[in-house]
Amino acid sequence: MKQKIAVLGPGSWGTALAQVLAENGHTVKLWGHNPAQIDEINTYHTNRHYLPNIKIPTSIKGIKELKEAVIDVDAILFVVPTKAIREVAKEVAISVNTKPYIIHASKGLEQGTHKRISEILSEEIPESKRQEIIVLSGPSHAEEVAVHDITTITAASEKLEAANYVQDLFMNDYFRIYTNTDVIGVETGAALKNIIAIGAGAIAGLGFGDNAKAAIMTRGLAEISRLGVAMGADPLTFIGLSGVGDLIVTGTSVHSRNWRAGNLLGKGKKLDEVLENMGMIVEGVATTKAAMELATSLNVDMPITKTIYNVLYEGKDIHQAAKEIMLRDGKVENEFS
Amino acid sequence: MKQKIAVLGPGSWGTALAQVLAENGHTVKLWGHNPAQIDEINTYHTNRHYLPNIKIPTSIKGIKELKEAVIDVDAILFVVPTKAIREVAKEVAISVNTKPYIIHASKGLEQGTHKRISEILSEEIPESKRQEIIVLSGPSHAEEVAVHDITTITAASEKLEAANYVQDLFMNDYFRIYTNTDVIGVETGAALKNIIAIGAGAIAGLGFGDNAKAAIMTRGLAEISRLGVAMGADPLTFIGLSGVGDLIVTGTSVHSRNWRAGNLLGKGKKLDEVLENMGMIVEGVATTKAAMELATSLNVDMPITKTIYNVLYEGKDIHQAAKEIMLRDGKVENEFS
Repeated sequence: MKQKIAVLGPGSWGTALAQVLAENGHTVKLWGHNPAQIDEINTYHTNRHYLPNIKIPTSIKGIKELKEAVIDVDAILFVVPTKAIREVAKEVAISVNTKPYIIHASKGLEQGTHKRISEILSEEIPESKRQEIIVLSGPSHAEEVAVHDITTITAASEKLEAANYVQDLFMNDYFRIYTNTDVIGVETGAALKNIIAIGAGAIAGLGFGDNAKAAIMTRGLAEISRLGVAMGADPLTFIGLSGVGDLIVTGTSVHSRNWRAGNLLGKGKKLDEVLENMGMIVEGVATTKAAMELATSLNVDMPITKTIYNVLYEGKDIHQAAKEIMLRDGKVENEFS
Repeated sequence: MKQKIAVLGPGSWGTALAQVLAENGHTVKLWGHNPAQIDEINTYHTNRHYLPNIKIPTSIKGIKELKEAVIDVDAILFVVPTKAIREVAKEVAISVNTKPYIIHASKGLEQGTHKRISEILSEEIPESKRQEIIVLSGPSHAEEVAVHDITTITAASEKLEAANYVQDLFMNDYFRIYTNTDVIGVETGAALKNIIAIGAGAIAGLGFGDNAKAAIMTRGLAEISRLGVAMGADPLTFIGLSGVGDLIVTGTSVHSRNWRAGNLLGKGKKLDEVLENMGMIVEGVATTKAAMELATSLNVDMPITKTIYNVLYEGKDIHQAAKEIMLRDGKVENEFS
């Protein structure tokens, strides 16, 4: 059934998802706080800064007022940065008038509280004002979705029927959705994999080869799974699209910001220089700190994350760090205690 | 404690593993059936056809007679092709005089019987003539191990002490071993991942991008895990080095024979042309057939493997195949029934 949907956040991923929904015949309102960008979307049907060379469906209506975007809708899709989620959710809670499904496609943990996105959303939007919360995550460069390249992602909700609803919304012949009920696993996998992407970039920057790349990605996955399990996730979720899948795209692609930051660190640059050089936020840097704090409080062994933390925040020499991690005692492969 | 070890099979992987053992101070005999190759190893300390530009430790002794290689040893490491395992094991069983540990680093399933390598070894070498059987597997280009690049692999045996023994044999500052007791998971992961490597190569050959690459690798991993679980494996093993790890190396590397075969298929070549063009055995082609037979008899759903099978053996058009697999019904992500 055709639905009315508000998409919040016209970045590259939000715009690409709005395009999928519009192409599937749904009515889409796309909200953003930059009036010039919304005018561009409504007048020229482009979003050149975020999705160059893409013509956006003319049926997508850009909206400048959040209140206007979220009334009279069946579902609201949050695609705003992690640090803006709570504030936007508060405003949404005030304005909604229809008990919509709440979907999000953001990746991160809240600074300080270490809360997952769906936790923030459920705190700010009371149950009386919404249906279930569903997270959407998987290996997906927005640029490829926009040109109809084959893409698969996971829709996870505590209630399978809610995940099925989102599957029906998005699924078509180039965009394939798999359902899952492990919200914690999907959200932690999405956030924590950026740490490993920094590590994979660093290994390449240090001059190591494919074996070492596979080693840090696999052992990195093992330790983010351990942390996820300590937070309540099902370890099998990490073998799925939001875990392994997203890690393959992020950890082997020079297009990933996190990978590039790690790569520069591996080549001997200091964190300040790297961040200056990149000129944008590298989410994995903050996530590394959050993960270390969580690992300490939950008593989870995360040697790779700790090594990356030491390089990022304690000025540890990266060659020395790589060497030390190889000289640890032998380990058993699968430990989820 | 320094051990006496026979390494059977002086290909690139066997030679690289012999080098690790020799560098760790063990006494290594390296057996091969090609006398000229053994003479080259003993005279020039090179193995140019398999490991170009590498100087092999002079302490490694090339041996022409299998009987001579396997007497008076603490362990025997099989690194021969899958199709030669049974025959070599029969001969080993006749000659051994010391009850050695039996280690193998081969990847495949026996043609016709679909038996794993450790099953063949246990059938041919009676328990009275050996210690435990241990499988060694993980993401490892031999060329990188030979130049001391960082590498991690799994040693799996039903008895953890036997896996620990192999861990102690190999572990050093560039070669890191993780232990596991799930022999079935490690062996099936190692064999079946070649199917997915063909698929990943085909996706690239068809012109799809990173999202589709991650999709086929992740969903491929899900279905080889399902088959592995039906064969008795622990699903968590597939998140480890012999599963995800090896898949990352094989599915993202143009150096993988299976990936290259798939890539040529994706570019429109027929199987005959591909195999002629490659001029060598592509293990994944036979493994695809074995996996389809196993999936049928064990009633496991393997849509990606079936699609690859149809392209390889039934002449199905590869564009049509890629399209059909996207148009299936929506699925739940983690199903291991």
